[in-house]
Amino acid sequence: MAPTLPVTEPSTTLVVLDLAGIFVFAISGALVGVRKELDVFGVLVLAGTTGLGGGFLRDVLISATPPAALQDWRYLLIPVVAGLVTFWFHPSVGRRERTVNLFDAFGLGLFCVTGALKALDYGLHPLPAALMGMVTGIGGGMVRDLLASRTPSVFRGELYAIPALAGAAVVVVLREGTDLPTVLVALAGGGLCTVWRLVAMWRNWQAPLPRGPASV
Amino acid sequence: MAPTLPVTEPSTTLVVLDLAGIFVFAISGALVGVRKELDVFGVLVLAGTTGLGGGFLRDVLISATPPAALQDWRYLLIPVVAGLVTFWFHPSVGRRERTVNLFDAFGLGLFCVTGALKALDYGLHPLPAALMGMVTGIGGGMVRDLLASRTPSVFRGELYAIPALAGAAVVVVLREGTDLPTVLVALAGGGLCTVWRLVAMWRNWQAPLPRGPASV
Amino acid sequence: MAPTLPVTEPSTTLVVLDLAGIFVFAISGALVGVRKELDVFGVLVLAGTTGLGGGFLRDVLISATPPAALQDWRYLLIPVVAGLVTFWFHPSVGRRERTVNLFDAFGLGLFCVTGALKALDYGLHPLPAALMGMVTGIGGGMVRDLLASRTPSVFRGELYAIPALAGAAVVVVLREGTDLPTVLVALAGGGLCTVWRLVAMWRNWQAPLPRGPASV
Repeated sequence: MAPTLPVTEPSTTLVVLDLAGIFVFAISGALVGVRKELDVFGVLVLAGTTGLGGGFLRDVLISATPPAALQDWRYLLIPVVAGLVTFWFHPSVGRRERTVNLFDAFGLGLFCVTGALKALDYGLHPLPAALMGMVTGIGGGMVRDLLASRTPSVFRGELYAIPALAGAAVVVVLREGTDLPTVLVALAGGGLCTVWRLVAMWRNWQAPLPRGPASV
Repeated sequence: MAPTLPVTEPSTTLVVLDLAGIFVFAISGALVGVRKELDVFGVLVLAGTTGLGGGFLRDVLISATPPAALQDWRYLLIPVVAGLVTFWFHPSVGRRERTVNLFDAFGLGLFCVTGALKALDYGLHPLPAALMGMVTGIGGGMVRDLLASRTPSVFRGELYAIPALAGAAVVVVLREGTDLPTVLVALAGGGLCTVWRLVAMWRNWQAPLPRGPASV
Repeated sequence: MAPTLPVTEPSTTLVVLDLAGIFVFAISGALVGVRKELDVFGVLVLAGTTGLGGGFLRDVLISATPPAALQDWRYLLIPVVAGLVTFWFHPSVGRRERTVNLFDAFGLGLFCVTGALKALDYGLHPLPAALMGMVTGIGGGMVRDLLASRTPSVFRGELYAIPALAGAAVVVVLREGTDLPTVLVALAGGGLCTVWRLVAMWRNWQAPLPRGPASV
């Protein structure tokens, strides 16, 4: 069935960033699977849903279906490779929570960029486009944590959603307000998000908690 | 990208009801977040997913994408306001299960109305339209409970899904079979749903349980 | 609203297989609900989401919205019947994990066939179409297990996702490369998937686990 809408051809930069984001998120998903001692196919499914979940969520919400991942074999190959590499070499890839979170921070930075850019390409206004960047960033990890029965990272009391939203907002502002090339826009937004997230993990920054006694 | 389909402009009544439903569901989501001692951004994410989740699910299923919430800044502002108000004033907003359930009952009534009306506007037949009303009503709370690792309300042994389905059915029947103004249709369907749910909570009505010994 | 895209009319074979898959998955969902001692409406919701979840996921991803289940009352009736039958006659329908898994294996076989065929009908390339077959097969059970707070079957250390992918791949290869009638294509792919899954359960076949010490 031919697409009926004139779809903006994604730039090479955007595709490469998207694939890189899928790769690191897939590794973070596969590491969670290995730590839960899932078998190889469970690890692959968790790698795939973590890597592709955020993008699927974004594409469905902005009407960009079928998602790119179902039209381009590279999008499907990447999580398989990431999952197998993690499965076989997991002691080298890393066996600690910290390593999962490290890959997660880079995935977050990449996806908040590609999510926001794609949403703008599909005609969304700036505010929803920034939100879609955040959703793309936090979606894959939320699906991973739901499937693995973990408390979602986004609720773990560390800064998570807000760096993604800030990075996506920077992307939207620079894209709409300047003529900077995509790669610089991506570096600025994704860099802000990833660095903020990494520093928050390193310094153990906490977002404000509810005041007063814990509710019962 | 211009929409290709002639979309019925939603009536003001429908938009107001939808926003009110998002507001009360977002409060119920935020209250769950506060009770789990999430930080401010976790509370906002839970407020947003609870408030917008049911509508997103409906819009994706009936092909009404991108959802209204991504095209209209009011839909995004409402859960942020509801989340912040709950975060700062939670001891006043309420700290008990009962309060969450109270807001939940009003959200259920509002969403079963707006879900059914929107599904009819998009050309669905009466039976699926009533079902979409129920899905819109129970969807946000299910997403909230999944993310918060709680047993979904809908399974908690109290009447939950059936008042939503009944309210949506009343809306569909009145809309298709009479010339009543939208506000009266909404009051009849939403009122039935909310009152039924509240009375079920108050009297602790239980739906039938499986007969015989619990399966092993 | 009239559909704007020329949609391939589904063959009767495909519809019958789809309805059969929905029926057995709905029973597997309802059995989980009965075992968790949910009330009748909780059982029906779990039957419906398990029966229709995989297909909804597929239809949303391949842009086949609104899903068939919202346009054809038979799709809605089937899970209700399956849920009520299971609710009333559960001691006869089966009360053991093994019975749930048996129905699950047949649902897996049916859905990997209908998912792959429908994805091909909607113009997807062979590889993504096979993947959509797998997603349709494992989606309903994943939704069921998430809602019921169980570890998803797909992670339970038995072969699950790979028989679904293999069955879907057979369907795609036979459909694209031969002139076999649909019913034979379905039997070959679905049979492979279900038999493989049943034998894996019977012989307790395990997929490879990660090597080395469990990660901490």
